[in-house]
Amino acid sequence: MKIFSNPQTIQKSIKNLKLKKQTIGFVPTMGALHQGHISLIRRAKKENDIVVVSIFVNPAQFGPKEDLKSYPKPFVKDVKLCKKEGVDIIFAPKPESMYPKNYLTYINVEKLSGTMCGKARPGHFRGVATVVTKLFNIVQPDKAYFGLKDYQQSVIIKKITEDLNYPVKIITCPTIREKSGLALSSRNAYLSKEELNKALSISDSLKKAKELIENKKIKPVKNIVLEIKKIIKPVTDKIDYIEIRDAETLVEIKDNIDRKVVIAIAAYVGKTRLIDNIVVKPR
Amino acid sequence: MKIFSNPQTIQKSIKNLKLKKQTIGFVPTMGALHQGHISLIRRAKKENDIVVVSIFVNPAQFGPKEDLKSYPKPFVKDVKLCKKEGVDIIFAPKPESMYPKNYLTYINVEKLSGTMCGKARPGHFRGVATVVTKLFNIVQPDKAYFGLKDYQQSVIIKKITEDLNYPVKIITCPTIREKSGLALSSRNAYLSKEELNKALSISDSLKKAKELIENKKIKPVKNIVLEIKKIIKPVTDKIDYIEIRDAETLVEIKDNIDRKVVIAIAAYVGKTRLIDNIVVKPR
Repeated sequence: MKIFSNPQTIQKSIKNLKLKKQTIGFVPTMGALHQGHISLIRRAKKENDIVVVSIFVNPAQFGPKEDLKSYPKPFVKDVKLCKKEGVDIIFAPKPESMYPKNYLTYINVEKLSGTMCGKARPGHFRGVATVVTKLFNIVQPDKAYFGLKDYQQSVIIKKITEDLNYPVKIITCPTIREKSGLALSSRNAYLSKEELNKALSISDSLKKAKELIENKKIKPVKNIVLEIKKIIKPVTDKIDYIEIRDAETLVEIKDNIDRKVVIAIAAYVGKTRLIDNIVVKPR
Repeated sequence: MKIFSNPQTIQKSIKNLKLKKQTIGFVPTMGALHQGHISLIRRAKKENDIVVVSIFVNPAQFGPKEDLKSYPKPFVKDVKLCKKEGVDIIFAPKPESMYPKNYLTYINVEKLSGTMCGKARPGHFRGVATVVTKLFNIVQPDKAYFGLKDYQQSVIIKKITEDLNYPVKIITCPTIREKSGLALSSRNAYLSKEELNKALSISDSLKKAKELIENKKIKPVKNIVLEIKKIIKPVTDKIDYIEIRDAETLVEIKDNIDRKVVIAIAAYVGKTRLIDNIVVKPR
């Protein structure tokens, strides 16, 4: 396994691999790897000759009051995990080599970037879009793997790839959960035992919403949102949003749930902002 | 010579050429090819195995009141010229295949895009940046060729390439001029004989400014701007700007010309907006 930190060096190295007709699978991460990331790596291993994992806590996607500094960075542990999983190349650049002084170029995906997590975190998806574009140019993957836990992110990345004509196939993989139902997240490390218990209300409420739509055939958006609120409001510390949107386009569903939708929640448990979602199709 | 209009088809075709270790030289144009474009094509021929020319009047870089509809489109003549020059591939997409319904992704280069031509033409460089990014992803060139006539554009494209880590070498080539000094431009086709004569004042004033800086050692920016104004103001119909800026960074020079600068002019002759520039280094 090779570890690169210089963008130009890994770019040249991958160019040579491509000239040898090796296919490149890419798993971009912010490190603090958990079973969710591992599931992406394993899928990439199956489908490509070479698997590249990037480990980069991208400053451009953090707001000034967000957790950039405290975000977990267990680099040695991450490297071991990657080695164990048979990753071929790790790309772990320094922030100053990705955003040197006088850095000026940013990608914006209109409409999609301003809602949901983009409303609560202004500039977040501009940062995500920019780093993904940069990483695609550096790693030049044939396929890139993203978890559906960051649902809005996956929709935005598909849109960028299509709009900017990247020759990259975007593969989205299911959210990995604890037995309890809690969605795996590097930010779960911030939670105390008590908070972990409280956090469960989020995945519980999504399961309940799915059941109400599928089995009880409840269709009005406002009823479903109310049921979710009943479960999470007493336990969480602040609700950023509960949204029910078209699963493909993220267009808001106003009255009745009449197509495949994503139900997405962002809420705080203590000082930790958690997100989760579920895709549901009414029967 | 092959002509493609479908982005996916040319992308696949070029991928195959790259697997055969062919190097790709790329000349992006809006068609209406003149000797300026030909000089780029000839340079590309010398330096690459395969030369790709794109012909695309990019709607995203035209303002709502600009000349998108009237912009010359002599496609058959352009194709003949390319064939004569030994171009290997023409890419001439339809606007709707570059910007389909629901297109949402745009590139912005901060600071550089808001001055000079960007001030007079809001959104222009966002359109340029976006189409160049798309074309780079479609054509995947090793080298791309741009004329220095669009000086600010060349600085912005270098910045995008660097910031977004494109594995593309940007080659800038000198402005080609008539014997009279007039910079070649597809928009010269709009000019009557009388207007062509008036347009000469722009290149004349730049030549004069260069001489004043190099031989008379006149340094104050305001004096040079005054000298240029003296020449072009009586003849042109509106001056958009006369700017003297650092040739690399486009930072404004405030007092004395103390480094390599670009002197750039945008002015109207009749209804036609013309631009020209000259790079000068004080001795």
